[in-house]
Amino acid sequence: MTADTQKLKSTGNGPEARNDGDANAMWGGRFTAGPAEVMEQINASISFDQRLYAQDIAGSKAHCAMLVEQAIISPEDGAAILSGLDTILSEIENGSFTFKASLEDIHMNIEARLRELVGEAAGRLHTARSRNDQVALDVRLWTRAAVERLEAAVGGLQAALIAQAEAEADSIMPGYTHLQAAQPVTFGHHMMAYVEMLGRDRGRLRDCRARMNESPLGAAALAGTSFPIDRQATAKALGFDRPMANSIDAVSDRDYVLEFLSTGAILTIHLSRFAEELVLWCSAGFRFVQLSDAFTTGSSIMPQKRNPDAAELIRGKAGRVIGALNSLLIVMKGLPLSYGKDMQEDKEPLFDAADTLQLCVTAMTGMVQDMTADRTALRQATDHGFITATDLADWLVRRLGLPFRQAHHVTGSIVRLAEERGCALAALPLSEMQAVEAGINEEIFEVLSVEKAVASRDSHGGTAPAQVRQAIAAAKERFQ
Amino acid sequence: MTADTQKLKSTGNGPEARNDGDANAMWGGRFTAGPAEVMEQINASISFDQRLYAQDIAGSKAHCAMLVEQAIISPEDGAAILSGLDTILSEIENGSFTFKASLEDIHMNIEARLRELVGEAAGRLHTARSRNDQVALDVRLWTRAAVERLEAAVGGLQAALIAQAEAEADSIMPGYTHLQAAQPVTFGHHMMAYVEMLGRDRGRLRDCRARMNESPLGAAALAGTSFPIDRQATAKALGFDRPMANSIDAVSDRDYVLEFLSTGAILTIHLSRFAEELVLWCSAGFRFVQLSDAFTTGSSIMPQKRNPDAAELIRGKAGRVIGALNSLLIVMKGLPLSYGKDMQEDKEPLFDAADTLQLCVTAMTGMVQDMTADRTALRQATDHGFITATDLADWLVRRLGLPFRQAHHVTGSIVRLAEERGCALAALPLSEMQAVEAGINEEIFEVLSVEKAVASRDSHGGTAPAQVRQAIAAAKERFQ
Amino acid sequence: MTADTQKLKSTGNGPEARNDGDANAMWGGRFTAGPAEVMEQINASISFDQRLYAQDIAGSKAHCAMLVEQAIISPEDGAAILSGLDTILSEIENGSFTFKASLEDIHMNIEARLRELVGEAAGRLHTARSRNDQVALDVRLWTRAAVERLEAAVGGLQAALIAQAEAEADSIMPGYTHLQAAQPVTFGHHMMAYVEMLGRDRGRLRDCRARMNESPLGAAALAGTSFPIDRQATAKALGFDRPMANSIDAVSDRDYVLEFLSTGAILTIHLSRFAEELVLWCSAGFRFVQLSDAFTTGSSIMPQKRNPDAAELIRGKAGRVIGALNSLLIVMKGLPLSYGKDMQEDKEPLFDAADTLQLCVTAMTGMVQDMTADRTALRQATDHGFITATDLADWLVRRLGLPFRQAHHVTGSIVRLAEERGCALAALPLSEMQAVEAGINEEIFEVLSVEKAVASRDSHGGTAPAQVRQAIAAAKERFQ
Amino acid sequence: MTADTQKLKSTGNGPEARNDGDANAMWGGRFTAGPAEVMEQINASISFDQRLYAQDIAGSKAHCAMLVEQAIISPEDGAAILSGLDTILSEIENGSFTFKASLEDIHMNIEARLRELVGEAAGRLHTARSRNDQVALDVRLWTRAAVERLEAAVGGLQAALIAQAEAEADSIMPGYTHLQAAQPVTFGHHMMAYVEMLGRDRGRLRDCRARMNESPLGAAALAGTSFPIDRQATAKALGFDRPMANSIDAVSDRDYVLEFLSTGAILTIHLSRFAEELVLWCSAGFRFVQLSDAFTTGSSIMPQKRNPDAAELIRGKAGRVIGALNSLLIVMKGLPLSYGKDMQEDKEPLFDAADTLQLCVTAMTGMVQDMTADRTALRQATDHGFITATDLADWLVRRLGLPFRQAHHVTGSIVRLAEERGCALAALPLSEMQAVEAGINEEIFEVLSVEKAVASRDSHGGTAPAQVRQAIAAAKERFQ
Repeated sequence: MTADTQKLKSTGNGPEARNDGDANAMWGGRFTAGPAEVMEQINASISFDQRLYAQDIAGSKAHCAMLVEQAIISPEDGAAILSGLDTILSEIENGSFTFKASLEDIHMNIEARLRELVGEAAGRLHTARSRNDQVALDVRLWTRAAVERLEAAVGGLQAALIAQAEAEADSIMPGYTHLQAAQPVTFGHHMMAYVEMLGRDRGRLRDCRARMNESPLGAAALAGTSFPIDRQATAKALGFDRPMANSIDAVSDRDYVLEFLSTGAILTIHLSRFAEELVLWCSAGFRFVQLSDAFTTGSSIMPQKRNPDAAELIRGKAGRVIGALNSLLIVMKGLPLSYGKDMQEDKEPLFDAADTLQLCVTAMTGMVQDMTADRTALRQATDHGFITATDLADWLVRRLGLPFRQAHHVTGSIVRLAEERGCALAALPLSEMQAVEAGINEEIFEVLSVEKAVASRDSHGGTAPAQVRQAIAAAKERFQ
Repeated sequence: MTADTQKLKSTGNGPEARNDGDANAMWGGRFTAGPAEVMEQINASISFDQRLYAQDIAGSKAHCAMLVEQAIISPEDGAAILSGLDTILSEIENGSFTFKASLEDIHMNIEARLRELVGEAAGRLHTARSRNDQVALDVRLWTRAAVERLEAAVGGLQAALIAQAEAEADSIMPGYTHLQAAQPVTFGHHMMAYVEMLGRDRGRLRDCRARMNESPLGAAALAGTSFPIDRQATAKALGFDRPMANSIDAVSDRDYVLEFLSTGAILTIHLSRFAEELVLWCSAGFRFVQLSDAFTTGSSIMPQKRNPDAAELIRGKAGRVIGALNSLLIVMKGLPLSYGKDMQEDKEPLFDAADTLQLCVTAMTGMVQDMTADRTALRQATDHGFITATDLADWLVRRLGLPFRQAHHVTGSIVRLAEERGCALAALPLSEMQAVEAGINEEIFEVLSVEKAVASRDSHGGTAPAQVRQAIAAAKERFQ
Repeated sequence: MTADTQKLKSTGNGPEARNDGDANAMWGGRFTAGPAEVMEQINASISFDQRLYAQDIAGSKAHCAMLVEQAIISPEDGAAILSGLDTILSEIENGSFTFKASLEDIHMNIEARLRELVGEAAGRLHTARSRNDQVALDVRLWTRAAVERLEAAVGGLQAALIAQAEAEADSIMPGYTHLQAAQPVTFGHHMMAYVEMLGRDRGRLRDCRARMNESPLGAAALAGTSFPIDRQATAKALGFDRPMANSIDAVSDRDYVLEFLSTGAILTIHLSRFAEELVLWCSAGFRFVQLSDAFTTGSSIMPQKRNPDAAELIRGKAGRVIGALNSLLIVMKGLPLSYGKDMQEDKEPLFDAADTLQLCVTAMTGMVQDMTADRTALRQATDHGFITATDLADWLVRRLGLPFRQAHHVTGSIVRLAEERGCALAALPLSEMQAVEAGINEEIFEVLSVEKAVASRDSHGGTAPAQVRQAIAAAKERFQ
Repeated sequence: MTADTQKLKSTGNGPEARNDGDANAMWGGRFTAGPAEVMEQINASISFDQRLYAQDIAGSKAHCAMLVEQAIISPEDGAAILSGLDTILSEIENGSFTFKASLEDIHMNIEARLRELVGEAAGRLHTARSRNDQVALDVRLWTRAAVERLEAAVGGLQAALIAQAEAEADSIMPGYTHLQAAQPVTFGHHMMAYVEMLGRDRGRLRDCRARMNESPLGAAALAGTSFPIDRQATAKALGFDRPMANSIDAVSDRDYVLEFLSTGAILTIHLSRFAEELVLWCSAGFRFVQLSDAFTTGSSIMPQKRNPDAAELIRGKAGRVIGALNSLLIVMKGLPLSYGKDMQEDKEPLFDAADTLQLCVTAMTGMVQDMTADRTALRQATDHGFITATDLADWLVRRLGLPFRQAHHVTGSIVRLAEERGCALAALPLSEMQAVEAGINEEIFEVLSVEKAVASRDSHGGTAPAQVRQAIAAAKERFQ
């Protein structure tokens, strides 16, 4: 199985990592033997942590500037380092940088290149710093940006949903419980339910961002440093609200990744629920919406198929994000302080979940934008299932003064009559209804229409089009 | 397997549920056959949702008062209902209430009893309400209280840790990475790392509480109601900040449970990490702390054992809470709106996780309060592992102007010398060090003492006792 | 929150556990202080492990008989012990036994009662045994019985599905991919797909049983014993194939629980897929089956609803079983050998998952037995979606010799024509088809009928009724 | 964030996928618009499913040969197809094949290239086949190979452990429960516990392989086919035991992946437990083993560190595999039959888990082979913790006829005396012991030696060196 063996040697998803024989050049003079090949495979993180390059360089620049400011290194060394780091940034972004697995991770790859570029000064950059606080910083900066990106994308999805809600504020459809038609609602009202869910997701993302926005830099290996560093300065330079208060915590903490993944997992619940509805709504039994060709695919053997693949994939990818959350919770459980190498397993689930979430929200936004509600099909679906039975019961309460539970019982008997006759409630002769409850009169036919039923539910947050329009207006304010 | 068969019939953890033959009395007149016995077993929730009784009654009282205020029901009926509900509350709390599985859930059990107590008026309580918004309300109120209880308990654990930190602010111990001694820290500093983690947990719990604090009541089945209800009034009466904005969302949403479970899962990570450390610290290889007899157990066959059972259980119970989170995420994934019966599976993981979290935090607080740090053992453990090697490297940077990377390399060589001789770094003759790096002088012995090393790390958040004392003072302000 | 506080004190789901002040009576003379109340709450397992009583007594009887046989205890002591154990078994089964939380677990509760009943001899039962191998034995015996029960129940569900398949071997329905009608199949064929899945589940359960069927008894605490015990004898007496080969493994192992939970998790996938289909098939868009009243429920506010609650609950409970598996994997991950108290967390997920699985399979069996397929609705649903398009393409290959890919393309064009006209494929004039592909002739209308299409798929395992009948006959042999 | 945006466009871990504008070339003539770019990102699987190339080609060759044999296609077309497929296999293996994201997946990429190579004949290969059974086949073949690879690797790890066990069959160390020294065991005995665990893992892998070894080929889209195919022939050609019995099941089933992941998850539990022990044993408090330089790493700031990184990574990667299992369980839960696009989410967790498992087992094997047990440190650790207390209790039972529980109590009192004096049990004067239990005599000192204690535990599977040697000999037979 050649391909798989090869795969094992290079599980990276980025530039090919090469073993140049300079293994462990960074670890100083104590080791007598190089790591086994399998050790390099399991240990090296450069295949995935190269995604942290921008954060790593930004952090190093802030650290360097502070070292100069505090006179811990000379202005000349500082200038050389900053210039070298800018060169490396360019090299990476234009694709001319060569990542090496033998240098293990992004930090060492950049540092080694910096030494090539600026010589001895490069060795001074690591003063008063450790890979432990460096990686803690990089991952935190990356996660912060991912949270911001995702929150903006979710806002875009809300906007697409609000636009649909506005267009379909009056479009009547069945509201379901247990996937059984329960009461008529409007398509717009249904869309706005998702706008609320996504609003909470955005709130969680903002809270997550606020809580993580403290700088670990300056914690060094785990205990702080004896150099006269200025943690406030580096925190400010990197957009943090403050330095973290405890150096051991700073290098041990992955809460921010876990909180992001938790938040993302709940978001995927919302996306998967909507995706499930889209799959249902595209099936022959519903036909409530039409997705655009752009978001459906065909079949290799069944040419008539228009498969809602994107919706299915979004539904399925919930498993992936929940899996990533679960995975990192398991990694972190029971780890003694401070840093353990297990924590290197934080990056891949983080990167994969962040990519997946961004992709799902983007794809969902596209689907919603392109989607066309079929008003006829929506309205016709309310003809089934005696969907205004509650309105009948409520009328019995309001007009005849029946206690609700008795009204409910009476309604059940009338529904059974209609079911036996195979007709809609509104098509049942008055006399038959009166045989069940003598007080019923002609007025009843008014509440049995779905249009009336929908319009009547004008309590705050209810499905009456007027309420839905108010909710849309408010949402535009709240979620802009 | 008699016991297991019985178990299947009554999986409840509360009062025995009985089948009194009145199955489905609430569902009106449409059904011709009662549910199969297995259906009652799978469907009835009274064995666990009876824990919602106080929330259910509080919600019903608020709803009733509003119905009266809005003239939807009469003041007389309202008074009868309120009085009946108070009676039921007393009956439940004094143990005289009989829960029946045939009545399915807490809502129906209370409503049926109310009918016995106040007659026809009971049937009016359900006007403009549905079990869907009723259960949404009850679970939300219960979760809110659970979040508050837990947040307070975590505050108690912080206080216990701060007290230990204060007592041991100067007690030197090894700081570990990879469970290898890395640099000396103080026991107080280590305790304060957990105070930080728990502070984030409390922040998450508070955010969770704030986000969930909106009232679903008034959403009715899913579409709102045609009765002129006042959702602001019931929201206010029940301590909510406002009503939820969308009725479909109100009955579909379980975000607040998921967010609580996520938050709890992250909290268990912190607890499990500390628990792991306690297990390690009690083992013969460390002996860093002594737990009280109250929190250790013996062995049935090995009389000499003092097992840190509570710590092990807290570590293990992380699995339980993560399992509960995972379970509910799976339940909710891909559910179409609005209510599906799957959502009944929210309660048991919620209740179990809330109990587990409260118990773990309480037990951990007790352990910390009773725990005695063994200062001698802590200090002795710093004699191994060349724990001040970083200080040597930093000295080379500061005094000799070596780039850090070169200093690191020199230090590695010196450590290797000490290892070969089997002596501590401070016990290595100056000449041997000078053979590696000629610039080293007598001054070096000063930084090789762990006391000096600890005191020197006085950067913000560092382990120097002065820093730790400042952090303690600040924490008392921040986390009171 | 009185009820919750109470709950915390007694999380047990069995007889009330009381603290009688005899805490630690078993641990010998070394402890000076009793455990804190919270410690008893977190530590005691009697509230759940009392379910192991029958296994514990059976194990003790086998151990006792062997001790007598090997002359390690006297026949008189042996007889007294066996008689006392029988008395205890009766007491527990008739409800007269009082479980005490202060005695921690089922083992201590039984041993303490045995001492009351037979005096000093009771103390000899624990010779050459430890709680570690005792609990390992009890859980293994319990799990083995649960596996057997479940495997039998799954066989019952297969029988119910086969009966449905037999009755509906000719009933044509749409086969779906992506929830889009793809090709016609028969209802019987669809049922038989689940029979296959469940057959694999039974195979997994049998493999699991075979692998776990080794006796841990005799491992003692972890190292074996110096008493001349006969492990073969106890293994045989308890129905095991052999003793486990390594004493440390014997007390450390929970593989059998994990394997059972894994197997159960895969089973819930199958059950949840079928449950999802039942929910869909009961909804207005499908109406493929009618569930009996026994397995549907009504609504408190919408009298017309017939909710497929049991199906939804089975679907939801997949989350619970997967949660239990996940939970125990997390508990066991990274535990050093041999026994750690974390492992006490194995029982509740095991018990809950076993109960849940048994209940779900039983409820599903009832639903299937009571379910009626609506042949008219099934057949009508094949009128949509150009479901015989593949047959058209295959005809083009067979009769006109077109390469499949070209045939596929031609078919796509014809389907588009039919879609534009809003007619079925069979209703498209021949001339229109010929305009796309000149070679098409009258013969084509034959393959466009769903009945012909179904009958033609008579490859092994295909949906042609003849194939389905063969598969049913074979299944009756394979899965009896 | 340029890099991340780029990442989103190409999440693949293989050759760069290009969009050549030939999107949907395979889907026939029905679509009017190409998929949106985001749709291609979410939908295309070529970046990961290219790993199936060898399986896809093998399956196509078997299918082609059968089509010829059954006279469904001509021998000439068959020869052209087989030759073309061989060319493609070479192209992929020598790196000259260009994968295109626009062609979506491995099946379409190969088919498109085949058309370039052999023209119209390529279009005949897909006769009587669908992508649904093609992907089902490919994944199954890949998984089968992965299972075989892993089972062999686990066998290699067993061999390494057995070698260590043989070398250290007499090396005495503390056996732990609760991480407290409990009773002395031998290092060899401890190693053999893992050999047993891994033996069960291999059994599970073999069972998994046997159960999955049925061919889905011939199920076509889901319903079988009307072409006269020979499923037995293709099954046999591909090494399967038989064709799957139900065509709907054949394309719906992912049990084999779930079972492999479950099995892998349990394996990671074993690996993580051993990894945890290695981390502990390398720490200063234990020093039981020395890992080779090849499997340890240094620190960037703390030159003295020798970090057991590989062990930590193996421990952490348990989270990854459990996450993958959880992820796919979630994907599959509640999916209606037959194929849904969600199922495309099976591959990445499968590939990642298979790679991870193979890597972990290989790295662990290397670590074990290189590992040196420190016999002195192991033996010294048994001097603490009154580790022969059970032996004292057992002696009281054997020689003085005390009931075990009384013996246990007496022993507890003696241990307390030793603890107060700070001496070992064997160092306690006889008179002090006699003050607790008058019957104790000189003989007692014999059982208090750890060597005697170990040698005495010669029950089957016990820790006595003679038993361990027998177990090693048996294991060599059982697990060769």
